[in-house]
Amino acid sequence: MSLQSSFDPKKLKRYLPILDWGSRYNASTFANDGIAAIIVTIMLIPQSLAYALLAGLPAQMGLYASILPLVAYAVFGTSRALAVGPVAVVSLMTAASVGNMALQGTAEYAAAAITLAFLSGLILLVMGIFRLGFFANFLSHPVIAGFITASGILIAASQVKHIFGVSAGGHTLPERLVQLAENIGETNLITLVIGVAATAFLFWVRKGLKPLLLSKGVSPRMADIATKAGPVAAVVVTTLITFVFGLHNHGVKIVGEVPRGLPPLTLPHFSPTIWSQLFGSAILISIIGFVESVSVAQTLAAKKRQRIVPDQELIGLGASNIAAAVSGGYPVTGGFARSVVNFDAGAETPAAGAFTAVGIALAALFLTPLLYFLPVATLAATIIVAVLSLVDFSILKSTWGYSKTDFAAVLATILLTLGFGVETGVSSGVILSIAMHLYKTSRPHIAEVGLVPGTEHFRNINRHDVLTTTDVVTIRVDESLYFANARFLEDYVLDRIADDKDIKHVVLMCPAVNEIDQSALEALEEINKRLDDGGIKLHLSEVKGPVMDRLQKCHFLHELTGQVFLSQYAAMKALGDVTVPPVASETDEDKVA
Amino acid sequence: MSLQSSFDPKKLKRYLPILDWGSRYNASTFANDGIAAIIVTIMLIPQSLAYALLAGLPAQMGLYASILPLVAYAVFGTSRALAVGPVAVVSLMTAASVGNMALQGTAEYAAAAITLAFLSGLILLVMGIFRLGFFANFLSHPVIAGFITASGILIAASQVKHIFGVSAGGHTLPERLVQLAENIGETNLITLVIGVAATAFLFWVRKGLKPLLLSKGVSPRMADIATKAGPVAAVVVTTLITFVFGLHNHGVKIVGEVPRGLPPLTLPHFSPTIWSQLFGSAILISIIGFVESVSVAQTLAAKKRQRIVPDQELIGLGASNIAAAVSGGYPVTGGFARSVVNFDAGAETPAAGAFTAVGIALAALFLTPLLYFLPVATLAATIIVAVLSLVDFSILKSTWGYSKTDFAAVLATILLTLGFGVETGVSSGVILSIAMHLYKTSRPHIAEVGLVPGTEHFRNINRHDVLTTTDVVTIRVDESLYFANARFLEDYVLDRIADDKDIKHVVLMCPAVNEIDQSALEALEEINKRLDDGGIKLHLSEVKGPVMDRLQKCHFLHELTGQVFLSQYAAMKALGDVTVPPVASETDEDKVA
Repeated sequence: MSLQSSFDPKKLKRYLPILDWGSRYNASTFANDGIAAIIVTIMLIPQSLAYALLAGLPAQMGLYASILPLVAYAVFGTSRALAVGPVAVVSLMTAASVGNMALQGTAEYAAAAITLAFLSGLILLVMGIFRLGFFANFLSHPVIAGFITASGILIAASQVKHIFGVSAGGHTLPERLVQLAENIGETNLITLVIGVAATAFLFWVRKGLKPLLLSKGVSPRMADIATKAGPVAAVVVTTLITFVFGLHNHGVKIVGEVPRGLPPLTLPHFSPTIWSQLFGSAILISIIGFVESVSVAQTLAAKKRQRIVPDQELIGLGASNIAAAVSGGYPVTGGFARSVVNFDAGAETPAAGAFTAVGIALAALFLTPLLYFLPVATLAATIIVAVLSLVDFSILKSTWGYSKTDFAAVLATILLTLGFGVETGVSSGVILSIAMHLYKTSRPHIAEVGLVPGTEHFRNINRHDVLTTTDVVTIRVDESLYFANARFLEDYVLDRIADDKDIKHVVLMCPAVNEIDQSALEALEEINKRLDDGGIKLHLSEVKGPVMDRLQKCHFLHELTGQVFLSQYAAMKALGDVTVPPVASETDEDKVA
Repeated sequence: MSLQSSFDPKKLKRYLPILDWGSRYNASTFANDGIAAIIVTIMLIPQSLAYALLAGLPAQMGLYASILPLVAYAVFGTSRALAVGPVAVVSLMTAASVGNMALQGTAEYAAAAITLAFLSGLILLVMGIFRLGFFANFLSHPVIAGFITASGILIAASQVKHIFGVSAGGHTLPERLVQLAENIGETNLITLVIGVAATAFLFWVRKGLKPLLLSKGVSPRMADIATKAGPVAAVVVTTLITFVFGLHNHGVKIVGEVPRGLPPLTLPHFSPTIWSQLFGSAILISIIGFVESVSVAQTLAAKKRQRIVPDQELIGLGASNIAAAVSGGYPVTGGFARSVVNFDAGAETPAAGAFTAVGIALAALFLTPLLYFLPVATLAATIIVAVLSLVDFSILKSTWGYSKTDFAAVLATILLTLGFGVETGVSSGVILSIAMHLYKTSRPHIAEVGLVPGTEHFRNINRHDVLTTTDVVTIRVDESLYFANARFLEDYVLDRIADDKDIKHVVLMCPAVNEIDQSALEALEEINKRLDDGGIKLHLSEVKGPVMDRLQKCHFLHELTGQVFLSQYAAMKALGDVTVPPVASETDEDKVA
């Protein structure tokens, strides 16, 4: 008791959300979580094997990545519905990253994937502890959408070789297509039949089965479960056919021996060389995984008016990845499709994830011998059907109509991801978004404004019929003033007054100026001095509170030749010889000036 | 005549400013340019030798870099007073960059420096042609100030070994100090005497000579010339003493054989490996050189109410560097101190630079044998005295008082430049400035506002006594809405309405919103939908023209549950049950709503 009193239980619950929801756990929650776990387990068994394959890893590592990481997330995560585990995009990124360091199938390759999970977990944990979740904000929606679409295409392309039963490699779309075309002559016809049939069946399950079952009077819930079990059916049927007809003797590639048992204890490499080689990829995987995970978690939480805590999500996902690294797994995150299924199936707490882990552990203990004859083509079909639902080019259309710079960022992300691989693609998208944002703010929109008649409101003289005077120029800068646009403002103001001898006052109207940094302050000092040389006074109006606080700390306001007005209307009344509109009163002038 | 008519002479003059000022050249301009050229030549001879030494290059390369590049700038440059040639900071950066590739004193080292000049010239030309001069804006004033100060310290530290006559290396301050301390036992006393005497003399010339001469009745102009000739006097006297007493036989390091003659024709390397190794440094050198050059050119132009054209300056400096590369030189730019001297000495056109080139060419033809006995310690003293005037820590004080983020950027730039070298220092400064700007804009200032009584003006409810109503919340976002803060806004608005059941209307007041990108648009759509779920209407007010134009291109305005008001006052009158202040009239309401 005396020990406990030194803890702040609320703070502890913030870092261990399980203490919060765990204390209210009851039989009904258990039943709901259990049913959701069964459905997700059925979906996850073939997916985890398939994604391990996509990552270039042995099938069992997919299972291992679906046990301990799920338990870790259940303890530390805040989302009630997020289904953590291997996902397509992160598996592809793992293959791209680890593929630079070792050959697929070697022990180093697997060890590098484990180290990648550890590093990625560490990065997520550190970001969570220092509350750096806002980093993910720099991945703009369009860049993410473009990246996911391009990754879906890349992943599908990477699996086509398994459908044809040929070998091919490559990290980019052109590489993959060229290698596929070169080897297409070695197509194994039986494999092709299995692959095409499985793909067609899975597409039909996704689109046509549910309406059919519903029309036969099956309950919607059962229809849903049947739909999610589609991949399991494909696995069972093609495995049986392969076993019965001995198709593996006719060139059909099968999964083969999958070791039976619980995950082994593994340790990541601690070599600085390997860490530095993997570090860049680990950051990308962490951030992409986090963004994917948080988007789905937030969407699902919103449906139940719940909230998730992004910084605690970082800790949850970090713990999951470290759990993956110590138990023979590879990088994991919250998957989009499985989380939606988990939510729809009624999962109420993160315990559903822990129950799923139990299901996968049972599979690892007892089902692996049954996977021996599973054709790789079936797993490829599972992946293709799953990822093609990620491909969505509508973002190109919507950004084209709304914002050409966003369009450029999406297009660049898609093309660079397809043409140069996932890491180049997403990094370029982020850098391009930031660069274009900086470029735009470095050439801000500047409007000369006048009074809208009958109001105290000022608008652009080029867009509205407004009142102005000849000896007062009011310039509204539509941007914060900072180093990137300080010189631009200086040039603009000095050019504006150069040829106009009537000007006596320049008012900088600052409702859009959210910051004035040191560089911009120096530019303002320069403007003030140069205007003074020409006998022109510089005034400011509508300076925001936080900006004014800062200006009051320095000499500028003493040097300023003019005044600072609370509102532009007050500035106009004090400086202008314009007839003050009849609606305005002269009272309270001192208060606003 | 018929050929000429196909040219646009104005356009040609833009790219060849010499056609502009050249056509008005006369005897008086010639006389003024000539006098300025003589003074600058006297100053440049020792400086060019010293800076070549600083760059780790043979002394004559400093002379070569002061001939053809000056002629090229005279043809293409727009500044009337800029003195182009070797400068301290760029020489230091050259040493840092080329030092990674070859050993000082080898032919490869010199060839790499020539290639660096070529690359840097190419980059500047391309930036000029594509008008990318705005890139330089991303070097904030504080970062530049910090970088120049730290470079001054680094350069001075690099020369101390010559004063002591010991050998030492290193690119960072700690490295240099440690190596100096290790070898201090080998100090050559005669060298130390020459070095300390020369340094003391030069400091005295800089601070004490001019007042002394003025008090003796010497004209200010002559006093100025005498001051600038100080380094030449030091060179002549120490060279004579060394020659007369044969001090080079007593361990005093001398410049030695400097080849006589005009610059040789040289060609840069065209190897992709070398280019890729030098590319990053070339970009940094180009941008730093450009920024230094443009700052001094603008300051001097402003004093005579002239203007320079930054994009044409890029072309001028690019041509200079390519000229340096083909004539045995190394990277050049407009120097601060020499340009001021050139201006003060009365230079009226860029021809003064061409005349200086003639002076240096004469020196290269006839004076080099006289430099044989020049002690290296004297050159080191010249450098130390010149660069210590660059060291100015006042930027730390002014940023500390005004802006802590600018302070952090300066401090980081200074410490990283001293601790890790020039390239790391300046790159980190730039990245840090951009990162901090993005961080600030990703967590924008958001204020809830109300009506200032007696006006139509709205201000922060926490800072002003304002009128509000219970069922209308007006939120002013003080930042453009873009990907980095889209989620922040969503969270803020949804948190704000979560616990307040009275709210019927949320007005987003957008005078500070200069952009709404695709990510922010999606966030607004989400806010609109979620508010609608709670029966709350979302309105916008004071949306800027360019932002409104974009919104009208998409579906959002149709989905918006509320209205868009021209002014916040109009929104208040339409939505609020607040007593409309008596000063306002009800006329023209339709016009503003």
